[in-house]
Amino acid sequence: MKLSSVVFLGGWAFALASFFVPQPGAQSGVDRSAAIRASVSGATARNIILFIGDGMGDSEITLARYYARGAAGRLAMDTLPFTGSYTTWSVDEQTPTLPVYVPDSAATGTAWATGVKTSNGRISTTPSTDRDLKTILEHARELGFRTGDVSTAELTDATPAVLAAHVSSRACHGPQDMATCASDRRSAGGAGSIAEQLIAHDVDVLLGGGAARFDQTTDAGPTVTALAAQRGYRVLRSRQELAASSGPGKLLGLFAAGNMSTELTGDRAVPYPSNSAAPQSCRAQARGADEPTLAEMTATALRVLGQPGGDGPGFFLQVEGAHIDKQDHQADPCGQIGDTVGFDRAVQLGLDFAASHPDTLVIVTADHGHTSQIVASPTATDHPPGAISSLRTADGATITVSYATNLPGRMQDHTGTQVRVAATGPQAANVLGLSDQTELFRLLLNAMGGARPNAAGSAAP
Amino acid sequence: MKLSSVVFLGGWAFALASFFVPQPGAQSGVDRSAAIRASVSGATARNIILFIGDGMGDSEITLARYYARGAAGRLAMDTLPFTGSYTTWSVDEQTPTLPVYVPDSAATGTAWATGVKTSNGRISTTPSTDRDLKTILEHARELGFRTGDVSTAELTDATPAVLAAHVSSRACHGPQDMATCASDRRSAGGAGSIAEQLIAHDVDVLLGGGAARFDQTTDAGPTVTALAAQRGYRVLRSRQELAASSGPGKLLGLFAAGNMSTELTGDRAVPYPSNSAAPQSCRAQARGADEPTLAEMTATALRVLGQPGGDGPGFFLQVEGAHIDKQDHQADPCGQIGDTVGFDRAVQLGLDFAASHPDTLVIVTADHGHTSQIVASPTATDHPPGAISSLRTADGATITVSYATNLPGRMQDHTGTQVRVAATGPQAANVLGLSDQTELFRLLLNAMGGARPNAAGSAAP
Repeated sequence: MKLSSVVFLGGWAFALASFFVPQPGAQSGVDRSAAIRASVSGATARNIILFIGDGMGDSEITLARYYARGAAGRLAMDTLPFTGSYTTWSVDEQTPTLPVYVPDSAATGTAWATGVKTSNGRISTTPSTDRDLKTILEHARELGFRTGDVSTAELTDATPAVLAAHVSSRACHGPQDMATCASDRRSAGGAGSIAEQLIAHDVDVLLGGGAARFDQTTDAGPTVTALAAQRGYRVLRSRQELAASSGPGKLLGLFAAGNMSTELTGDRAVPYPSNSAAPQSCRAQARGADEPTLAEMTATALRVLGQPGGDGPGFFLQVEGAHIDKQDHQADPCGQIGDTVGFDRAVQLGLDFAASHPDTLVIVTADHGHTSQIVASPTATDHPPGAISSLRTADGATITVSYATNLPGRMQDHTGTQVRVAATGPQAANVLGLSDQTELFRLLLNAMGGARPNAAGSAAP
Repeated sequence: MKLSSVVFLGGWAFALASFFVPQPGAQSGVDRSAAIRASVSGATARNIILFIGDGMGDSEITLARYYARGAAGRLAMDTLPFTGSYTTWSVDEQTPTLPVYVPDSAATGTAWATGVKTSNGRISTTPSTDRDLKTILEHARELGFRTGDVSTAELTDATPAVLAAHVSSRACHGPQDMATCASDRRSAGGAGSIAEQLIAHDVDVLLGGGAARFDQTTDAGPTVTALAAQRGYRVLRSRQELAASSGPGKLLGLFAAGNMSTELTGDRAVPYPSNSAAPQSCRAQARGADEPTLAEMTATALRVLGQPGGDGPGFFLQVEGAHIDKQDHQADPCGQIGDTVGFDRAVQLGLDFAASHPDTLVIVTADHGHTSQIVASPTATDHPPGAISSLRTADGATITVSYATNLPGRMQDHTGTQVRVAATGPQAANVLGLSDQTELFRLLLNAMGGARPNAAGSAAP
């Protein structure tokens, strides 16, 4: 220090310091113990909304917040009061006693959806032995909950699939995609492709991409979409139809042939020097006017599923932000950030719903960690060896992101880090501390008032 | 699935699955709400133990756990019941209204130790204006707490320094290291180097490395060590002296000329293919028999500081695991993992102390994230572009770690991710959710029963 000793430093110097330094607007040191104690509820939940940010590790959350809200800003997902972390490892297909430390979304989805670890690529089936694992959505339906499954990916992608399908390979999206799942074909006596199984499960609200999978013809002749209509689904193809829809009655919304569009776009990361001399600002994606956002799909799902229906069980809804993962794979920071923020808008709607329906448990988590890292400003001598991109943040400062789990130009990969799980509402405090992803299944089942799940170490009932 | 539909799957199939699949031993789906509610305490803390894992992001925690305990294993730090995350950004020296998203340990230490953001490199002084910021250790002393500061780094390194020194540059370790802090020299009317200030603060227990800094001569002539002895410090130089020491009376333990030794050693990460064909197992470091471990230093600190002393304030102790950061910088997975586990042994001692002294608040956190990532098994076409190393874990499986925040062979760098903060004891629940690192200062002061800290946005009183 320059002028005075600690003893003589008074309020003025600190007021001066605080004038210059942006300080975060957090809890300001007030003890929150009483409020936290009061908000711990062991009641069962009438409604459950599970938000899965695919690949949304803490690094991805931090990047999106800093870019879109600034360093001291807050996302909706940041405001959930109860927080913990869980591990995400999967297991080896041939030797399921061996862990695999970097999982995929199929294995991690099976873990949170069924409470049992499986191998990468499997959809709610056991490793090696290929037995079906009962999912939390199946439990929810048995317990009288209405159900919903929403994603910006194809509805047949791993995360939405694990709730209402059982196949040996995530690749078996539609009836014409069954090469690797021959025994699962309907014509072979199986339950069919993921698309067919989603419909057969009578999930009340299915909203997302993947129309081309549902429009494939089944072994029996009609397309999956046609079978869905026969089974009582209203099939929606546009944002306008989505906005006009209401319950009761099942909804199948297919808003893109494949995955839905990202919300922001920009330049992909490339090796140094990349754009370090001229950081980019992300641009709005040129989306079709017919294509709804994740928040719009979530709003409809909450409106349809949340309609008053007596005192019994309400609904279980899963909402996935899929492009956080997909654009992380592509080393596309704008796509990744845009969809983290878009996912967060959906989370805000969930929190708004819970505010007016306090018997609602809201959980926001990820299935696995991913590649992107916030790194120091690159220089000619010191810079990451992989793909990097610099962005101009809401603070007017520069942030640099590195993608280095694979060579530049190749698909970037997941990581094995533990990830955040946050919750509010009945039984939300159970996410505290460190757990494993499989515990989320047990937490959800318990919150539904379902059968007491088996002790750890055994599989789902 | 192969044989049967979901409807017909009974307990047998699941028992079979569970036989093959290692399932984590977590909370087993039992609602913990009542226990959590009961453990929320708003009382003040008689003792506070703050464990700082330098650079110990969630990725570093996960890596150490998987390597040393296995995927379903648990570290001591995993067992703390209250958990949250905090942001770690620092600010620009010239324009302190601008955040810097990748901080160093000096700025982050200043943040948690004083509640105010500063620029990278500063030790408890304001950015640009270079004013001293009152630290939590200074508050603790005023409030009657005994104090301790323990590290595997030099005691003059950033993390131990921020508690009891105020200088413009972390480089100003000893009286002969003052080139960049001319105005802080004693002969210039300043408070002197970090080593001199640590002694002048009368910290009751100072244990770590950095003997060469303390053995430098001061402007007045004697070495810092000699001045310490004059001031009433017992100077310890070996594990044997440490083990024999007891209170009352101040202790200065200097167990290495520079940083202390790591606990494990092995091969550093190098570019693909590295050792992917033959994963390494870490080896015990050849440490001098005179050099204590972090756990041993922590045990002495707890024994000396924790001696019964009436009903008033007890102690505030900071314990840093410094090599988590330093070996992450070196792309040395064994060094990094060994010291994460060594740090965790110290955490266990803190938890043991708290178990027999329930008026103790224990916090385990990090100052910033770091470079290491758990990545998929590398192949010729798909592998990280930076330095990698594969290790044989406690599970008998292979884990691969990538260091890619800088070019291979260069010092790896910190990242900007939010990091974990975990706590148990009085006021521990205040760590829940997302906060900023500066809030930790306010939490600690509040838990000490100190003056009500200023609202967020203003600096420490």
